[in-house]
Amino acid sequence: MADFIEPKVLKGFRDFLPPAEIARRALLEQIEGHFRSYGFVPIDTPALEYTEVLLGKGGGETEKQIYRFNDNGGRDVALRFDLTVPFARFLAEHRAELTFPFKRYHIAKVWRGENTQRGRYREFTQCDMDIVGSDSAAADFEILHIMAKTLPAISGSEVIIRLNHRGLFNTFLSKLGVLDQSVNILRTVDKLSKIGRDETAELLAQFVGESNAGKILTYIEIKGNFSDTLAAMTDAAGTCPEAERLGLIQKFISDSGIAENSVALDPSITRGLDYYTGVVFESFLADMPSIGSICSGGRYDNLVALYSTDKRSPLKGVGTSIGIDRLIAGLESLGRLHTVQSYAAVAVACVSESSAGACQNIAETLRKQGIPCEVFLDAGKLAAQFQMAEKKGLRWVIIPSAENPLTSPLTLRNLATRENRENLSLEAVLAALKQA
Amino acid sequence: MADFIEPKVLKGFRDFLPPAEIARRALLEQIEGHFRSYGFVPIDTPALEYTEVLLGKGGGETEKQIYRFNDNGGRDVALRFDLTVPFARFLAEHRAELTFPFKRYHIAKVWRGENTQRGRYREFTQCDMDIVGSDSAAADFEILHIMAKTLPAISGSEVIIRLNHRGLFNTFLSKLGVLDQSVNILRTVDKLSKIGRDETAELLAQFVGESNAGKILTYIEIKGNFSDTLAAMTDAAGTCPEAERLGLIQKFISDSGIAENSVALDPSITRGLDYYTGVVFESFLADMPSIGSICSGGRYDNLVALYSTDKRSPLKGVGTSIGIDRLIAGLESLGRLHTVQSYAAVAVACVSESSAGACQNIAETLRKQGIPCEVFLDAGKLAAQFQMAEKKGLRWVIIPSAENPLTSPLTLRNLATRENRENLSLEAVLAALKQA
Repeated sequence: MADFIEPKVLKGFRDFLPPAEIARRALLEQIEGHFRSYGFVPIDTPALEYTEVLLGKGGGETEKQIYRFNDNGGRDVALRFDLTVPFARFLAEHRAELTFPFKRYHIAKVWRGENTQRGRYREFTQCDMDIVGSDSAAADFEILHIMAKTLPAISGSEVIIRLNHRGLFNTFLSKLGVLDQSVNILRTVDKLSKIGRDETAELLAQFVGESNAGKILTYIEIKGNFSDTLAAMTDAAGTCPEAERLGLIQKFISDSGIAENSVALDPSITRGLDYYTGVVFESFLADMPSIGSICSGGRYDNLVALYSTDKRSPLKGVGTSIGIDRLIAGLESLGRLHTVQSYAAVAVACVSESSAGACQNIAETLRKQGIPCEVFLDAGKLAAQFQMAEKKGLRWVIIPSAENPLTSPLTLRNLATRENRENLSLEAVLAALKQA
Repeated sequence: MADFIEPKVLKGFRDFLPPAEIARRALLEQIEGHFRSYGFVPIDTPALEYTEVLLGKGGGETEKQIYRFNDNGGRDVALRFDLTVPFARFLAEHRAELTFPFKRYHIAKVWRGENTQRGRYREFTQCDMDIVGSDSAAADFEILHIMAKTLPAISGSEVIIRLNHRGLFNTFLSKLGVLDQSVNILRTVDKLSKIGRDETAELLAQFVGESNAGKILTYIEIKGNFSDTLAAMTDAAGTCPEAERLGLIQKFISDSGIAENSVALDPSITRGLDYYTGVVFESFLADMPSIGSICSGGRYDNLVALYSTDKRSPLKGVGTSIGIDRLIAGLESLGRLHTVQSYAAVAVACVSESSAGACQNIAETLRKQGIPCEVFLDAGKLAAQFQMAEKKGLRWVIIPSAENPLTSPLTLRNLATRENRENLSLEAVLAALKQA
């Protein structure tokens, strides 16, 4: 039993004070609004699951980073480290209750005991959306379309979506006869931007020989508009369904009216060793590409394989995830994070200890008109109440009469101009606030 | 490395499928809208904290129920079991950054390893709101006002708020000379509804004698309208600041226009051994009181004492918490839980493999007008697509021309009546959907 406990949070964890939390929620609500407008529906899953369910086939880094323990019932449990694995378990468990293609979003916290560094936290929010049960190019494109519409709207910035097809790269490697080296090749080309072209070529040559190393580098460095890039990629890999799908997606982009220069076909986007098998996406703020991809995803083959023994067709899918923490960091750097201190812009002053009922009555009239309104609770000098209102980020204070707060005219104080308008009816106050 | 892992969640934990999650989010969004309209601001705190911070002075039941473990860095950590303790830690840590009175809400999950039973889960959501830094009756009343406005709106039911004052009960016990027995007395009267009047009287008599036992029972059984009840309580306890505060709150109720019969002064509401020291509230659905209080709270003396050595005044506060899981259970039983399967009511049919861009173009026009619109992704018989739309809970399907989806007229299918309206422009479709 302690007398004093130091109030501190764990390393890598964060408190969100109101201005930060209001900004974060505004972004999440915008994102959610976009997801919903496409007919995506939300699910939720437990924060805590059986470790066996979460670790599945196991895996080095994940296993080291996971928050894992035995609960009071002796169960081996862990906090989810992403929303994809719980979604796979969810699909296997509830498959019979769902209608496919199933379009779901899930916005929730996940936990990883990573080394903390700038912009990396041990508790963070993921915003995932996936279409499961359709192998169509239309599904690939819908994810692209959502990204193209949502990301500029929430960031206030032009966004470049970089698109590639992992299967097309594999077809190309196959044609070179080096598909069996694909893991080594992916691991190496992923380092290109860090180690430079020469060292990448040298490393690649160890696995595939000098000539193939050159061809691979040439392939991933193909540049140009969508058509030219696709032509060069098809040239290298040969005509194949994967190239045809990229062509179809190009047609969809044009038919849907998405600006052609907001989507770039980019053979260097590989998403490393992720489980993607088809299209892959990354996306960058045009004003701040240096913070990295703010929304990435792709197509995968079968999400439920690990949790399902049934003989029905595998559940293919395509999805994406918005990195909300990275996006917020980017918007903050650009000075574009819209922070406010309160949802209310107006308060009713406390003019006497006995006026609280009348003040709530006045405030309620505003609230019913869609105007959030705070009520100050402690009688005190008006000057002090104006100061408090300013500290709270409010813009207006309504001052009732101390004697007859319910029936006498009101005064409306504009905190910015320090002007009072006196002798107003409640209707006049309402009109003034609506105009402001 | 397993070949197959059974997809199951932990006992006491839940998946939320889309209809349940949509209903849950709709309720939470309504609640949040009400909180915001009063100028309350959101905060967030970590799910995981130092165990020392969460357990504080320790405490039997809590300690047994908490999810506690050592993290990879050897820290003794635990999942939060409520939002009050983290809020106390938050206030102590960030006091200098906040403006008081501080009105905050926090809607988040908490975890308790309780025995599971009907309506009790090990992971559940709390919706807390508190005003900290004001000792005024106006603050007590604001919480009451929010409850009186929010609960009927979200439940579609009349709500009875039962109000009492713990301090007034203590004044009464003091007058009887049995204040030192208050813990035993509270523990006993809390059982009244379970064990009946006679047994309660017998138990009480063991602590305070037969005569006082009778007086205590008479006090907590005072009934009548607000004025009569307050008069009888004041009669028993003597004139005191606590009785005056209840009188002030009665005036506020009347001035604010809250229906008098929606707030009952009820001396039997004690909130057991909670840390409340002033007013306490419970609230019940008039149509279903049997599910118990759906929103409870009260006033407490100093939230930050444990985490603060500074000499500034203590942080007194008053707050309440909506039991969203219980409310949902109640609404479900009443058949009043508004469940839908999707935010969208309309889909664009997939008329060919190459139409996805055109379909998104059509859908986007609707979305821009505030009409959520799904796009179907796989070409197939229209009859099958209509069936899928019905399974998804949609009401309309827009069918473009397979040859010229972008330029040819559209067909609008009403799934309920099975009628098609043909040869419509996109504007005509929009108009029809807006009318519906």
